[in-house]
Amino acid sequence: MKLIDGNIASPLGFSADGLHAGFKKRKLDFGWIVSEVPASVAGVYTTNQVIAAPLIVTKQAQQLEKMQAIVVNSGVANSCTGQKGLEDAYTMQEWTAKKLGIANDLVGVASTGVIGEFLPLDKLENGLSKIVVNGNADDFAQAILTTDTVTKTITVEETFGKDVVTMSGVAKGSGMIHPNMATMLAFITCDANISSQTLQKALSQKVETTFNQITVDGDTSTNDMVLVLSNGCTQNQEIIEGTEDYDRFVAMLHVVMTDLAKKIAKDGEGATKLIQVDVTGAKDSLSARMVAKSIVGSSLVKTAIFGEDANWGRIIAAIGYAGVDLDVEKIDIALEHLPVMIQSSPVSFDQEEMEEVMQKDQITISVNLNSGLESGRAWGCDLSYDYVKINALYRT
Amino acid sequence: MKLIDGNIASPLGFSADGLHAGFKKRKLDFGWIVSEVPASVAGVYTTNQVIAAPLIVTKQAQQLEKMQAIVVNSGVANSCTGQKGLEDAYTMQEWTAKKLGIANDLVGVASTGVIGEFLPLDKLENGLSKIVVNGNADDFAQAILTTDTVTKTITVEETFGKDVVTMSGVAKGSGMIHPNMATMLAFITCDANISSQTLQKALSQKVETTFNQITVDGDTSTNDMVLVLSNGCTQNQEIIEGTEDYDRFVAMLHVVMTDLAKKIAKDGEGATKLIQVDVTGAKDSLSARMVAKSIVGSSLVKTAIFGEDANWGRIIAAIGYAGVDLDVEKIDIALEHLPVMIQSSPVSFDQEEMEEVMQKDQITISVNLNSGLESGRAWGCDLSYDYVKINALYRT
Repeated sequence: MKLIDGNIASPLGFSADGLHAGFKKRKLDFGWIVSEVPASVAGVYTTNQVIAAPLIVTKQAQQLEKMQAIVVNSGVANSCTGQKGLEDAYTMQEWTAKKLGIANDLVGVASTGVIGEFLPLDKLENGLSKIVVNGNADDFAQAILTTDTVTKTITVEETFGKDVVTMSGVAKGSGMIHPNMATMLAFITCDANISSQTLQKALSQKVETTFNQITVDGDTSTNDMVLVLSNGCTQNQEIIEGTEDYDRFVAMLHVVMTDLAKKIAKDGEGATKLIQVDVTGAKDSLSARMVAKSIVGSSLVKTAIFGEDANWGRIIAAIGYAGVDLDVEKIDIALEHLPVMIQSSPVSFDQEEMEEVMQKDQITISVNLNSGLESGRAWGCDLSYDYVKINALYRT
Repeated sequence: MKLIDGNIASPLGFSADGLHAGFKKRKLDFGWIVSEVPASVAGVYTTNQVIAAPLIVTKQAQQLEKMQAIVVNSGVANSCTGQKGLEDAYTMQEWTAKKLGIANDLVGVASTGVIGEFLPLDKLENGLSKIVVNGNADDFAQAILTTDTVTKTITVEETFGKDVVTMSGVAKGSGMIHPNMATMLAFITCDANISSQTLQKALSQKVETTFNQITVDGDTSTNDMVLVLSNGCTQNQEIIEGTEDYDRFVAMLHVVMTDLAKKIAKDGEGATKLIQVDVTGAKDSLSARMVAKSIVGSSLVKTAIFGEDANWGRIIAAIGYAGVDLDVEKIDIALEHLPVMIQSSPVSFDQEEMEEVMQKDQITISVNLNSGLESGRAWGCDLSYDYVKINALYRT
């Protein structure tokens, strides 16, 4: 597998565009991804019981197992907007389909931004009048952002026999980030030949260890979704579960989703550092992931990392309330390469060396539960003054 | 029932003292509560699987169903200190018993402060050499504080036939506050005649709706405990379950525990406002409490309240991920007396009036799920720059 320069339109047969339609004051706020032909599709959605209107429309479209376009606006989430909101989401789907000359059901819709405001249809009309097929695909990554400070993209290439398959992902995150069996706004395109069922299986499997293992603030959004489109334009032999090709495809998905998940965690609101927690020696992988996510979700751990304080007492406390069956006498903890606790007893470390380590902009916390063979990983960010500032002043 | 001026030594037969022993630099850090006679005792403890040494010692003592003294230090939590920590906690119990001339098993011990440091026995010795029976009971409330900014006490009086029963509570809270079937350091004294079994039943029942319904930062400490001592010095007729006297006693406990819980929430680290969430119309009381606690625990709700922003979108999102079976179309939300959402649709409100409301130092969020008859309440505080500051710089 090879990392390449590219964007969401790099896989064969895809194009994308992004522009300013007026949902936000100045920044790009409207975009689409279009495939030349209907693509296989897989999706995962928020587990929040309060579900935004666009997710209802997109879930329904996805059930028909083909999708050809995804249209997205940022600035207004079209969430908690009742029957009118649902009608507006269908309108967004319908108008987009009309512009492309395809069936309504082939269009997925997504929105992100302020909850409780209606979608301004005049802005939608404005956006659709200006957007083009084969537009500037890099602008799509800009158009889906809210309080994000950077775009989040990755493109990879892999050989399948004589065929080269390209996969590209784009995501937005920032606040209200604590996916649970679903995730942020993330879109992945691929030109491989694979059925929707197989694609869904691969996506559902990989979401557990990637997007579901990040947290910024413990709040699960009403608008989270991940959509993967794979249009078969490579004309490779169909990828079937249980084959080496399938493993190779899942590996691509793993790299793309892990990369986007880490980029979302690192760009969490107000974040100054990426925190990675590696848990090993667990009885099962779910326990490992739960312990990792408990640590990375602790406000006290997050503030300590912001303060560059090697405060392992807060880490062991977060392990203790993770809701996992533990042998509390056998836990090892290290901050980067420096052990701070072995078999649940504090060990002394070089204070100067630790200070240096804590200044890094990515901190890895390693935990060995010494109770089994399974492992898990989670990502998050520190909790800074700026998180408070952004969220005391910004209206989600 | 009457609220009276008093302290933890107000119930008949109790005395207390507090002083500076050296666990902290300057502030009071050592104290005890002593009963003239062995008292009935009830306790609840942290559900964190990592349990500090003093809790192990106190739980064991409590099993004998009588307790006569509680000795406490602040500054060092004696948590994650292994076998030596456990021995030190037993030493604290033993030396205190010796000083009072009572059996070791009649002494409960508690510690709060930094995790992972050993208890300095010379400071303990120093404290015990200076502490007295019938000391300054108000100083006890000071001696148990860490980053708390105020003492937390309440004293009430109730008539049982011709007898007057007095009950007094004292607590410390601040950070690492997210009790779960157990709670902070809180001590309650009472002079009523009641068995340990009945007392435990009343305490366990009331902890669910009081201490377990507060959160500051979602972190559950390794040192949380609540102990209630009732020494019978009133010589009232024994309080038996199922009688009016029992209901009256439970009502006293309810007032004392609710008051201490609210005071802990209000004095959360960096807090500028107390948030109370009232949930009604739930299918069962546990669901109501879960929804209330989900809202009050949301970092996004907390920062919005700090920013005095009536951001109800974050409230409905927190209801949606509370893990409770909901009818998401029927939810009413109000901030103080101003409705913001009725039957899950936004309602407009007077912006000026709302701004005024949001400036209050206690904000009540009312939620009606319109799905049943049960209710629940939770308390918390806003999330401010100072929470980050305190925890980026302070070593728990």
